[in-house]
Amino acid sequence: MSRGKKHTGRLVLGVDVGGTNIKSVLVDVRGEILATMKRSTLARKGRDAVIDRIVMTLRDTAKKSGFPMKRVTGAGVGFAGPLDPATGVVFNPPNLPGWSNVPLRDILRQRLKMPVSLDNDANLVALGEHWKGAGRGAKCLVCLTLGTGVGGGIIVDGRVMHGARGIAGEIGHMTLVRNGRMCACGNKGCLEAYASAKGLVARMQELLKNSKGPKRGRVTPENIWRWAHSGDKLANKTIKDTGTMLGVAIASVANILNPDIVVLGGGVSNLGDPLFGAVREEVRKRALPKITEGLQVVGAELGDSAGALGAARSLLLSLNT
Amino acid sequence: MSRGKKHTGRLVLGVDVGGTNIKSVLVDVRGEILATMKRSTLARKGRDAVIDRIVMTLRDTAKKSGFPMKRVTGAGVGFAGPLDPATGVVFNPPNLPGWSNVPLRDILRQRLKMPVSLDNDANLVALGEHWKGAGRGAKCLVCLTLGTGVGGGIIVDGRVMHGARGIAGEIGHMTLVRNGRMCACGNKGCLEAYASAKGLVARMQELLKNSKGPKRGRVTPENIWRWAHSGDKLANKTIKDTGTMLGVAIASVANILNPDIVVLGGGVSNLGDPLFGAVREEVRKRALPKITEGLQVVGAELGDSAGALGAARSLLLSLNT
Repeated sequence: MSRGKKHTGRLVLGVDVGGTNIKSVLVDVRGEILATMKRSTLARKGRDAVIDRIVMTLRDTAKKSGFPMKRVTGAGVGFAGPLDPATGVVFNPPNLPGWSNVPLRDILRQRLKMPVSLDNDANLVALGEHWKGAGRGAKCLVCLTLGTGVGGGIIVDGRVMHGARGIAGEIGHMTLVRNGRMCACGNKGCLEAYASAKGLVARMQELLKNSKGPKRGRVTPENIWRWAHSGDKLANKTIKDTGTMLGVAIASVANILNPDIVVLGGGVSNLGDPLFGAVREEVRKRALPKITEGLQVVGAELGDSAGALGAARSLLLSLNT
Repeated sequence: MSRGKKHTGRLVLGVDVGGTNIKSVLVDVRGEILATMKRSTLARKGRDAVIDRIVMTLRDTAKKSGFPMKRVTGAGVGFAGPLDPATGVVFNPPNLPGWSNVPLRDILRQRLKMPVSLDNDANLVALGEHWKGAGRGAKCLVCLTLGTGVGGGIIVDGRVMHGARGIAGEIGHMTLVRNGRMCACGNKGCLEAYASAKGLVARMQELLKNSKGPKRGRVTPENIWRWAHSGDKLANKTIKDTGTMLGVAIASVANILNPDIVVLGGGVSNLGDPLFGAVREEVRKRALPKITEGLQVVGAELGDSAGALGAARSLLLSLNT
C-alpha cells in the first residue's frame, strides 16, 4: 500500500479495552490516525478470550493500515482499573469477571513481542484529550468521563498524574454529600452517585416522586434529554441539578489542583449547554476567584477514540523516559 | 567563628513571613540548621516596613550563624497567598494590609543581591515536612495546616504541585457541606469552616446550644482541649466531629491524588489522638481500599520551622532547574 511509504517515523498502537468494546488505533508520533478498529470485548468469555481478542484486534489494526507489524514500535493499553501502571498488573476490575491480579502488560509484551504500557482507561481518555482533543496545550488538565460511572484523569505537564501507587484520579469517588446516595464503591455520597447516567436517572426519579405532573415513559438519560428539549420542566431541573452537583465537585477539584481546563466527556456530557451552564455557574460561585479566572470547562472532542489515542500517547511517553 | 570552616558547601536562607511573625533559618544543602531567628512582622506598619524587616531578619540570621552574607547562595521566601510563584508577585493576602500586586521576589532580589524564590507559605510548610519532617521519602504528600485558616500543600516527586497558575493546594476551600457554614472566602461549607481553630470553636458552640450541661468558660481551642482531657463529653464530641469532617475531606483528596502520606500540622492538630483517630476512621470508611492501603495520616514534626525550611528547600530546587 502506498500509505506505508509516507510514514518513515515511528508508529504505535493504542487500545482501549472496556467492558463492552475494544477500540484501537494505529498512529504516528504526532497522533495522526492511520487505522482504527472496534470489536466487542465479549467479557463474559473470560480472561484468556479477552486477551486473545486484544491481540487479534491490534494485529488487525496494523494489517488494516497496510503497515506490517514489524513497523510498529509498541502498544499502549487502556484498561478498567484499579490497576498498577508501574508493574502493569490489573487488580480486579468490577466490570470484567475473572480478572484478578493479572500481569496484563507482561502477557501482552510476550504475545506481541514489543514494548507495551498499561494504564487506567479514564487516565488515558484524559491523556488523549490533552494530546489531540479539547485540552491541547493545557498545563494542568482534569478530565471527567460521565458514563455508567464517573471516571477521572489528571494530566500535569503532559503526563498522567499517578500519585504514590498509580491510582490517583478517582475523582468520581470524592464525597459530595456526607450522608448521600450509596455509591457502588461502598461509600456514601460520591460524585459518581450524582453525575453518572445512573445518578442522572436517580435525580429525575426523586423529582417525579414529589411531583404530580403527567405520566412519562421509562426514565433513561436519552428520554431525559428528549423531554428536556420539548420543554419538560422536571427534565430540565434534573439536568440543572446534575450540573450543579458536578459544579460543586469541580470547584473543589479546581481549588485543589488549579487546572487550566476541565474536560467533560461520556454520555451525560452530551446533555450539552444546560448541563455545562449549571456546572460553570456553580464553579464560579464556589472556586477562589484566582482559580476561576484561569479555568475553562469544556466538552470532550475525541469521543470514542480518546482512550485509544491516549493509550498510544502513553506508550510514546514511556519510550522517552 | 569556627563553624564557618566546617561548611564548604552551599548555604541558603529560608524565611516564612506570616501575619504575626517572620521566622528564618540558615541551612546547608542537606537542611542542617546553622541559625534560626524569629521576629514580629509588624504588619500594621505596612508593606515597606515589612520588607525592611524581612531583609533585616535574613541579614541578622546570617550574622548569627557566623557566616558572611557573601557565603549565602540565595534566599527562599514563604508568604501568605494568593501569589504567583512563577513571577514572584504577591496578589492580595487578606492578613497583610497594604499589599496588592507586589513584585516581592524581585524587590528582595535587588535588596539582597542574590537569587530569591517566592512561594505560598502553606506550600512551603508541606515542602519542609517532606524535606526534613514527617513526610521524608514520600512520593506524594498532602499537608494541611490547621490554624486560623486551613492551609494546604501538595508535594509530588519532591516538588510543590503548583497547577496551571501557581495557586494549587487550596484544599481548605474544598466544599464539604453544600449549604454549610459561611467561609471567609465567600463560599459555603469549605473545609476551613470546619477544621480551622474557628471551625472547632463553632462546633463546640453548636453542641452547647443544644445541651443543658454545666456552664463552661470561654470556648477556645485551648479550653476545648483542657475540657476534653478532664472528661467533658461535649468537648470530646467536638474534637471527634472535627476529625470526622477532616476525614471526609482527606478521603476525597486521597481518592483524587493517591498520596502515601497526609501530614496534619497547625494548632488544631495538637488535639492529638482523639482527632487523628476520628480522621483515620473516616478515611478508612470513605476512600477506596487500594488508596487507604498505602496511606498514612500523621502529625507534622517540624512545628514552627517547617515553613522556613521549606523556603530554603524551594530556593535550592529553583537553582537546580
